[in-house]
Amino acid sequence: MIKVGIIGANGYTGYELMRLLANHSGAKVVYAASRSMANTPVAELYPALGGAYADMRFSVPSAEDAASYSDVVFTALPHGLSAEMGARIIRMGKKVIDLSADFRYDNLAVFEKTYDITHPCPQLNNTAVYGLTELNRKKIKSASLIANPGCYPTASILALYPLLAEKVIKLDGIIIDAKSGQSGAGRKADEAFSLCESALNFKAYAVANHRHTGEIEEKLSLAAGADITLSFTPHLLPISRGILATVYADLSLDEKAAQAAYKKFYGGEPFVSVLTAGALPELKSVTGSNICRIGFKADKRTGKIIIVSVIDNLIKGASGAAIQNMNVLFGLKETEGLPLVGNQI
Amino acid sequence: MIKVGIIGANGYTGYELMRLLANHSGAKVVYAASRSMANTPVAELYPALGGAYADMRFSVPSAEDAASYSDVVFTALPHGLSAEMGARIIRMGKKVIDLSADFRYDNLAVFEKTYDITHPCPQLNNTAVYGLTELNRKKIKSASLIANPGCYPTASILALYPLLAEKVIKLDGIIIDAKSGQSGAGRKADEAFSLCESALNFKAYAVANHRHTGEIEEKLSLAAGADITLSFTPHLLPISRGILATVYADLSLDEKAAQAAYKKFYGGEPFVSVLTAGALPELKSVTGSNICRIGFKADKRTGKIIIVSVIDNLIKGASGAAIQNMNVLFGLKETEGLPLVGNQI
Amino acid sequence: MIKVGIIGANGYTGYELMRLLANHSGAKVVYAASRSMANTPVAELYPALGGAYADMRFSVPSAEDAASYSDVVFTALPHGLSAEMGARIIRMGKKVIDLSADFRYDNLAVFEKTYDITHPCPQLNNTAVYGLTELNRKKIKSASLIANPGCYPTASILALYPLLAEKVIKLDGIIIDAKSGQSGAGRKADEAFSLCESALNFKAYAVANHRHTGEIEEKLSLAAGADITLSFTPHLLPISRGILATVYADLSLDEKAAQAAYKKFYGGEPFVSVLTAGALPELKSVTGSNICRIGFKADKRTGKIIIVSVIDNLIKGASGAAIQNMNVLFGLKETEGLPLVGNQI
Amino acid sequence: MIKVGIIGANGYTGYELMRLLANHSGAKVVYAASRSMANTPVAELYPALGGAYADMRFSVPSAEDAASYSDVVFTALPHGLSAEMGARIIRMGKKVIDLSADFRYDNLAVFEKTYDITHPCPQLNNTAVYGLTELNRKKIKSASLIANPGCYPTASILALYPLLAEKVIKLDGIIIDAKSGQSGAGRKADEAFSLCESALNFKAYAVANHRHTGEIEEKLSLAAGADITLSFTPHLLPISRGILATVYADLSLDEKAAQAAYKKFYGGEPFVSVLTAGALPELKSVTGSNICRIGFKADKRTGKIIIVSVIDNLIKGASGAAIQNMNVLFGLKETEGLPLVGNQI
Repeated sequence: MIKVGIIGANGYTGYELMRLLANHSGAKVVYAASRSMANTPVAELYPALGGAYADMRFSVPSAEDAASYSDVVFTALPHGLSAEMGARIIRMGKKVIDLSADFRYDNLAVFEKTYDITHPCPQLNNTAVYGLTELNRKKIKSASLIANPGCYPTASILALYPLLAEKVIKLDGIIIDAKSGQSGAGRKADEAFSLCESALNFKAYAVANHRHTGEIEEKLSLAAGADITLSFTPHLLPISRGILATVYADLSLDEKAAQAAYKKFYGGEPFVSVLTAGALPELKSVTGSNICRIGFKADKRTGKIIIVSVIDNLIKGASGAAIQNMNVLFGLKETEGLPLVGNQI
Repeated sequence: MIKVGIIGANGYTGYELMRLLANHSGAKVVYAASRSMANTPVAELYPALGGAYADMRFSVPSAEDAASYSDVVFTALPHGLSAEMGARIIRMGKKVIDLSADFRYDNLAVFEKTYDITHPCPQLNNTAVYGLTELNRKKIKSASLIANPGCYPTASILALYPLLAEKVIKLDGIIIDAKSGQSGAGRKADEAFSLCESALNFKAYAVANHRHTGEIEEKLSLAAGADITLSFTPHLLPISRGILATVYADLSLDEKAAQAAYKKFYGGEPFVSVLTAGALPELKSVTGSNICRIGFKADKRTGKIIIVSVIDNLIKGASGAAIQNMNVLFGLKETEGLPLVGNQI
Repeated sequence: MIKVGIIGANGYTGYELMRLLANHSGAKVVYAASRSMANTPVAELYPALGGAYADMRFSVPSAEDAASYSDVVFTALPHGLSAEMGARIIRMGKKVIDLSADFRYDNLAVFEKTYDITHPCPQLNNTAVYGLTELNRKKIKSASLIANPGCYPTASILALYPLLAEKVIKLDGIIIDAKSGQSGAGRKADEAFSLCESALNFKAYAVANHRHTGEIEEKLSLAAGADITLSFTPHLLPISRGILATVYADLSLDEKAAQAAYKKFYGGEPFVSVLTAGALPELKSVTGSNICRIGFKADKRTGKIIIVSVIDNLIKGASGAAIQNMNVLFGLKETEGLPLVGNQI
Repeated sequence: MIKVGIIGANGYTGYELMRLLANHSGAKVVYAASRSMANTPVAELYPALGGAYADMRFSVPSAEDAASYSDVVFTALPHGLSAEMGARIIRMGKKVIDLSADFRYDNLAVFEKTYDITHPCPQLNNTAVYGLTELNRKKIKSASLIANPGCYPTASILALYPLLAEKVIKLDGIIIDAKSGQSGAGRKADEAFSLCESALNFKAYAVANHRHTGEIEEKLSLAAGADITLSFTPHLLPISRGILATVYADLSLDEKAAQAAYKKFYGGEPFVSVLTAGALPELKSVTGSNICRIGFKADKRTGKIIIVSVIDNLIKGASGAAIQNMNVLFGLKETEGLPLVGNQI
């Protein structure tokens, strides 16, 4: 039984790790730390967890405690802090799966500009593996430090990587129009996120400057073997969970080539489901599951391909992916503890 | 054109006053004050008001300014503060319609215990008229100070007053199980009211000790000519607007007597609509309007009558009722500026 | 591995059985039948199930097929039809867990009047065990036919049974004011259940004549050892899942006695969680789980106790309870495949 | 007082016409017809209208009755039927404002292909004026037949027309990623639109073949003086009301030129509000109002301009625009009866 520690456990990704791991046959949360909730019973903050964590309280965050109690630690802290905490745990010889942005970038200059911070441990960054399991499974197996991908990047990169790698689409003019549920912003006391202010609303935000843009571009540039610059526009849906990204690109080849490219990359993947050309997935087909579902359609009038990619932002876009990485890292069955079916309603 | 001032204009009742008065042919908001939003353009806090208040900014709250610019001032401040501000405006000879609880009670001891406060101007309280227009229209006409009723009390008192006055039901054992949209709690930054935490939730709160209980009991005791003690349980709906109260009482008489009692009290009322016995109103039939709709059904098995009363908590339960009172106070057509039809969708 | 058949698999209870059983280590759905969806791939109707049932199609309903393929069959058909189908499967020697109302009543006269039908197999009804596991675990172990309880009855009976059995409350005047998500009405094409018509709505329905009233009264009369007549008022929440019942009763004893009664009945139960006196559960604490969470508070002013009981109507109120019964029936661990933690968000 | 008739009054656009006209000082609904609801009281289908239409019943649709009772008739029927009904009313000398697609196209070949129908009265089509008031006000004044624009076209054309007319953007590669509330699909009994199936969902639909594409392209080609081919992708939001269109185009000029173009076209418009460059409107800023609010931002990295345009699909996108056209047609104040402020919450 793998012992799991979580630092920054009070947020939604922490919650979701605890929820999913309660049903995992090979791992168990033994340590859950949160500065703001230290000493509070887990079930007081999250009554829904009461059935499985009735006796657990949040700990005061401590790299030493986390490392001594756990085989692997999930760090889910604000950027900067997460890297510092992770570095100390790594030094104590334990594995770290980091859910912040701190280790996601190969290019530290882009990271530092994007997050307006000096990276606290640039050398460690070189050893980090970008944890998009479907693309980096081999490296993940032998990693000590895994940088869990961002939620928008997961939906976007999985949609575009095969098409760029197989030269199905052109490099220029890619547009990602993404829509996310509000849990992507984290647990927060903020009028703008109150039900009254947001339940009948829809809006774009961080237009032309969202932080995930660089992460998406860097990973897709690897696929293309050339620098990609694209438009990324996130929007806020009046629901809690889920991301749907509508992607527009100019076709070089055709629908058939697109289907072949997806098959080549995701043919045996348990958590990526690609539909037949012309069929497009709905968000609810993945909510509650660790699945990324992708559909696409060519538009002969405009020469474009429209790709729709859906994930549950808290599962495949965060905590589920982190557990998937843990499973790979520890040689467990990759699907263990991860729902293959969604809630639908 | 009546000149209207609003103090505490940044909250939802302030918003709703401004929204409704934008369509009023005989009154106009000339002054809107808010301490926390002072000097902010109204349209920055509430973009939806931009079409009518493009050039207005929130003022620093001042009784003197309010009184000098306005014919009538709506005060919507926390209890205690509202009374102080109102008192000064009254002294300067202007009318006040107060949306706080400060002047709603005849019995100041109950008020002071309920709100844990010493009333700042008890003598003024004696001159205040309880602004449930349907019950106090005559007194409102000649009042200087009107205490606008609470939202739950509006739905509850309108449902029960005629039945108690006409002795259709027994005095004991009345239960009001009420459900409200979240705007009843006001505009607030609070995790518990975030969409993520509340959109799929439903809960009871303030069970057996909600502050509106005393207000309801006091006014219904007047109807009954005897002290009423009842159970009041509010719940929080996962929507913004609307109150539905399900009321249970033991019948002394029958459905026919109930229908007659309602007809006697509300026969000519433009804003109270009583359905035929056995038909029950849905919340959406009143959302967006100033209507209170009431239905009832006798249950022969238990000897009880079940009454359902619905209002839009921000309109008939607050700002619409306040404007209705203003219309009466200034001799305008009572329905002016007040929607008789709801949004339905 | 227990082989499970489902007849009437296209509805929400069928969906939920398939979703939950996809994560069950000791049982597996081998047969899912639906007349209206016969030959349709399961993943076409329910894309979210695609990850686990990629190759399954709905079968044409057949008692013979169900019995020959399965160890146990869940029947989820309209009343009357369900009993007929179940009877044939029982005759072929297989276990049946029926999710309709057909076998829930000891008193067939009440059943037949309530559902306006002649019971097709009254003798079989005598052998059925009412599947509220917490109350009938022993009988369930040796049953062939289990009548799975209704959703409202589950929330209501669990809340009241211990208090009546231990004479903590009086028999007369009990009021159950219940609120349910819309999935309780089943999967349906109906304007009234469209998002446009219902997402901002709230309403009471079937007031004083809902069919679950008799089921609740019959089971609670067993607890009380006397005939119970009570008021039951269901309401429709603008969400999909969950039931919250607010229950009012007159106290004979006190809060302490209530706490003791609950402890006596549910002390070791994995799926019933009773809070400390005065604390009341929110709906979201159970959504997505098989837990029933109960809180209560005495009101000294009125002499009443207010009890709040919450369940996920599709899980503890239907499919989860059915699987719990299956686990008991086959000697599996009672909690296998059943979530102890909820979604919270 | 202008007498208004409505044919096809049972749908959401009919509802919204009746709701808005209840507050119009210069017009009054005297005739509301619906085949499926004939003889049903209006308040039975739409209880929220009860306060203003307590005594009205839906009529059996008849061009003769409509023309004889009314000064102007709003036709809101399925395409094909609407044109036939409108043609007969026009022949009887009354004005028609048609809310179907029947008279929106100059190019009948495109219309007939798009709607798979032979136009029933092509000559009449030549006399129809496309009722986007801001662009065609003069022609509307003297029209007999007004083709009210589609909802998506209203949001899209208002966003793009000035930029194309002033050559601020390039003609190729325009992408409109639009998101609409569910009332756009009309009042319907359909599982896919039930709250259970849609409240937590989001999806693209009619990708690369939505019927409004041709309407948008035709009107924008007029602005550009050249044929425009663009990508239009609609999505379905889990709310009832509102459209937000995110538009992507390649800049020829800059943000300043964009601002100037908008000012030139909409400087004095009461119902089009253009924000300062860089600011983007939220949907809730227009819900409940007849306003179209537009924001835009240049992205130097990609050379694109991103435009966000929001409307209430039932008001500015349908019934409000129709009343705006009526006001122009009859020389009333253009803003009469049309809300300048939105609901916000």
